[in-house]
Amino acid sequence: ADVKKIAVLGGDGIGPEVVGEALKVLKKTEELFGYQFETEHALFGGIAIDEKGTPLPQETLELCQKADAVLLGAVGGPKWDNNSKELRPETGLLGIRKALGLFSNIRPATVFDCLKDASTLKPEVLEGTDLIVVRELTGGIYFGEKFRREGANGEEAVDTCVYNVQEVERIVRQAFDIAMTRGKRLASVDKANVLETSRLWREVVNRVAVEYPEVELEHVLVDNCAMQLLRRPSSFDVIVTENMFGDILSDEAAMLTGSIGMLSSASLGEGSFGLYEPVHGSAPDIAGQGISNPIATILSVALMFRLTFGYHDAAKSIEEAVKNVLDAGHRTGDIAVDKSQAIGTTAMGDLIVAAM
Amino acid sequence: ADVKKIAVLGGDGIGPEVVGEALKVLKKTEELFGYQFETEHALFGGIAIDEKGTPLPQETLELCQKADAVLLGAVGGPKWDNNSKELRPETGLLGIRKALGLFSNIRPATVFDCLKDASTLKPEVLEGTDLIVVRELTGGIYFGEKFRREGANGEEAVDTCVYNVQEVERIVRQAFDIAMTRGKRLASVDKANVLETSRLWREVVNRVAVEYPEVELEHVLVDNCAMQLLRRPSSFDVIVTENMFGDILSDEAAMLTGSIGMLSSASLGEGSFGLYEPVHGSAPDIAGQGISNPIATILSVALMFRLTFGYHDAAKSIEEAVKNVLDAGHRTGDIAVDKSQAIGTTAMGDLIVAAM
Ligand SMILES: CC(C)[C@H](C(=O)O)[C@@H](O)C(=O)O
Ligand SMILES: CC(C)[C@H](C(=O)O)[C@@H](O)C(=O)O
Repeated sequence: ADVKKIAVLGGDGIGPEVVGEALKVLKKTEELFGYQFETEHALFGGIAIDEKGTPLPQETLELCQKADAVLLGAVGGPKWDNNSKELRPETGLLGIRKALGLFSNIRPATVFDCLKDASTLKPEVLEGTDLIVVRELTGGIYFGEKFRREGANGEEAVDTCVYNVQEVERIVRQAFDIAMTRGKRLASVDKANVLETSRLWREVVNRVAVEYPEVELEHVLVDNCAMQLLRRPSSFDVIVTENMFGDILSDEAAMLTGSIGMLSSASLGEGSFGLYEPVHGSAPDIAGQGISNPIATILSVALMFRLTFGYHDAAKSIEEAVKNVLDAGHRTGDIAVDKSQAIGTTAMGDLIVAAM
Repeated sequence: ADVKKIAVLGGDGIGPEVVGEALKVLKKTEELFGYQFETEHALFGGIAIDEKGTPLPQETLELCQKADAVLLGAVGGPKWDNNSKELRPETGLLGIRKALGLFSNIRPATVFDCLKDASTLKPEVLEGTDLIVVRELTGGIYFGEKFRREGANGEEAVDTCVYNVQEVERIVRQAFDIAMTRGKRLASVDKANVLETSRLWREVVNRVAVEYPEVELEHVLVDNCAMQLLRRPSSFDVIVTENMFGDILSDEAAMLTGSIGMLSSASLGEGSFGLYEPVHGSAPDIAGQGISNPIATILSVALMFRLTFGYHDAAKSIEEAVKNVLDAGHRTGDIAVDKSQAIGTTAMGDLIVAAM
């Protein structure tokens, strides 16, 4: 049988609890659909710093490299915030992206009907919003040379933003491919009126665009995009952009849906391998109380099924189960209007499993 | 008598029309308050490219250097979008900022009560929103070295982001000073978990903060700030950040107020000299039709009076006149609910002058 290996990195804060519910969904998928998964846990993030002295231990990386996919909870917390760079959870995150060649981060910003009211945007503005941000994940100012030096006016700090044609081309092509499976509209976001990397970016986009005549392409400046996301969110289909702009815009897009506790993400490289994680963070303030919302992580499993394994039947089963449970009125505290009616993490996981 | 010299750069698109109304307000101020202004016009932006072959002609720069303040309309338009870098309007904008040492851009994001409904945010979320973004304007990735080179994987582009201690310190100190005149809360925005320039930024902020014990300081990561602006806009007072992040966040903040046609901005250097301009752009699509909204430019004059000349009485007169005209129900097309009732650019200017 074709056993899929999944590396499971619970991480910090609510990470392990929400991942626990996602694992129940994996098990149920085996029963229902006959697929087989082999899961193995490893330390990552703050807990790895505590136990192994590094946020990304070698054995964790090796486990991921041998796996078909990675399921990640969340990393980070105040405990490690003031550590030196090598001993911070986010350094592990950047390290794992680079080491696994995960050059593309895909974040659907979907509005869940039952959560429309949770958005700070007016419902009529939000109506029909369903966009995906495709963010370049292993280049740009995140990974360029950084250093301090003595300048003419005292100490100075330097970050370098670098992109080569090939790096831009692969992410842009992926974004066009995704647009072809959806609304066939692509917004490429840059700051070509200021940055050289953005001018290179735009050249490559225009060149690749020729291969996708069916896709309607627009170039949007990053400052303007930050505005248009607020003004006309539903007019976007796929947004593609570089690492730093993607960090900012994908968070803005996620927040405007009002559904941030529900959003999943995929980080992909060449081939079908991918790392899947909820968009929300480790929420250390509510960790261990059994009240966190496992839906984003459960939907990350559905995304894994679609993008890495091609198990569309099982993905659909999960997505519909989530929808049915929500439609039946069940809510965790973060999305409940009446907090006194809120159910806990495991109750939500159990309901979804039962609805599959 | 103390005659104040104002360099007037109408620029492109609707720039000259909205500036024309602001000049009427200047004249009325002379009559009402006895202040004296000497205005001189110069070419800047696209029109300067057309007439002088450069977006920032030497005589324009010299006029600005001899002036006490600059009033700018807006620059840019599709006509010049595909020009080479030296022949683009925005190159003039970056050039004038650097040449005049305008290291600080100040953008109040105020919600005008009568325009609350124009925001895409829910009114209850917007309630009480009144923030200022202080953006560093002459450093960072905007002005660092940029070039192309051959790399191991083909052509690559490079942008360099540089900040020195002194550059950070002067903008941060200004932001603290502004916070002291307002709500005494300062959010410093950076990406200290990734960027070296952000770590330097944060060190300087923490050092300067000691001199302002009354100001409540928070450090916010830029991606989180893009979210929090949506989630809790009214909780911000003053936001200070570097050039690129400020470009993005100030536009997001402006848009969420729903009042973008009404927002003014100041770019300041050492001393009292400043350049004042509306936040909105040159809107080439409606230029020449006499329907543009002059209020943002008129309020830029009020900001000039406050920040450069200390003419608080005249500033107040303008601000109240604007408020009264709006309260009386007068609207230009961009802010009118019933477009058929909209008045034109000069009618709006005349009403405000009459109300002063
Ligand atoms: C933690 C941080 C380094 C990371 C990033 O900026 O990429 C995070 O914000 C994200 O978007 O995954
Ligand atoms: C036109 C452009 C270069 C400019 C900038 O990015 O600074 C503009 O967006 C602004 O904010 O004034």
